[in-house]
Amino acid sequence: MAESTPLEESRSPRRAPDPRRRSERARRAILDAASELLGEVGYSKVTIEAIAARAGVGKQTIYRWWPSKASVVFDVFTALTGGTAGEPLPDTGDLADDLRTVLRATVDELNDPEMDRTTRAFTTELQNDTAFAEAVTERLVRPNMEAIKERLRAGRDAGQLAPGADLDIVAELLTGPLHHRWMLRTGPLTHAYADELVDTVLTGLAPRG
Amino acid sequence: MAESTPLEESRSPRRAPDPRRRSERARRAILDAASELLGEVGYSKVTIEAIAARAGVGKQTIYRWWPSKASVVFDVFTALTGGTAGEPLPDTGDLADDLRTVLRATVDELNDPEMDRTTRAFTTELQNDTAFAEAVTERLVRPNMEAIKERLRAGRDAGQLAPGADLDIVAELLTGPLHHRWMLRTGPLTHAYADELVDTVLTGLAPRG
Repeated sequence: MAESTPLEESRSPRRAPDPRRRSERARRAILDAASELLGEVGYSKVTIEAIAARAGVGKQTIYRWWPSKASVVFDVFTALTGGTAGEPLPDTGDLADDLRTVLRATVDELNDPEMDRTTRAFTTELQNDTAFAEAVTERLVRPNMEAIKERLRAGRDAGQLAPGADLDIVAELLTGPLHHRWMLRTGPLTHAYADELVDTVLTGLAPRG
Repeated sequence: MAESTPLEESRSPRRAPDPRRRSERARRAILDAASELLGEVGYSKVTIEAIAARAGVGKQTIYRWWPSKASVVFDVFTALTGGTAGEPLPDTGDLADDLRTVLRATVDELNDPEMDRTTRAFTTELQNDTAFAEAVTERLVRPNMEAIKERLRAGRDAGQLAPGADLDIVAELLTGPLHHRWMLRTGPLTHAYADELVDTVLTGLAPRG
């Protein structure tokens, strides 16, 4: 199955696929195939060969864009989250309300089966591949933590957090327990839980008196 | 290399190995081999064959005691921690002091390379094997969380925590951030960090006024 060359395309413009659209279609098919396979066989058993076969492309097409299985899964995750790492949190002026909105959204994401399995695939690879772990931390985790801290800083300036609150610690108090509960499946991930977590942290750390 | 039978042993008692001691030696060799291989090739590439070869035993010896690779790693972990899951926390009467002791010990454990790699192997398997995840949660995570809650309850009774504090949430506020930081390697795991985490949670949740 020879691919049409740009020259051939220029000879029969009405029938020739747009290479950029074809590329985007292949890229999308590869990410979809990877996501499906994650759900069916789990990260450790997914192979580039299987992704290529499922997507109907050659292995070389995948390797042209991604150096490894881990990097494909990275982009599955990015596509799922809409590439929102580091996006500012809502700021309605009410810190507690905004944090509840954000943590409820995180709960919804983690309860989504596709998101759950992609994040677990991620978590698997994080344990075994230090370079991948660093990429995830730098491109996803740290920008998200900075965005949370930025919102906390505005809240602290507005007198909604104790003046001496260490924002790194507060950001971890909000994300760590949720992550722990999701990963170890020690309790339900609900909006009520998200709300209680936010309220416990903020009530505890509100200015006194 | 035929193994000696009990009958042979009774005929030459001085040369015959004690079967229980031999078993214990084999068991220890298997756990050591598994731990070494985790460090050398990572969980996903460890096989029962490789563990058997390294330990100098047959595969069947491993399968006699453990149904799977995951269960061997479970026992590597248990041996490392001295089987202390669910052990009561220290109670000197000073809640903050006792929690600092416990979290500092956790930090020390996670900074130990053998413990780190075993816990990461665990974390990998947890994502991919729900039955294993349930076993870990029931046999390790939940007993440990209950032990923390028990100590928190005593502290709450002694007036060192707000009367309305939700102990499930407080236990997660203490363990979740540390776990999150370890897993995603977002910051240093030090005694100073353990102390600050305990102080932030307890100061925030101390009774008011």
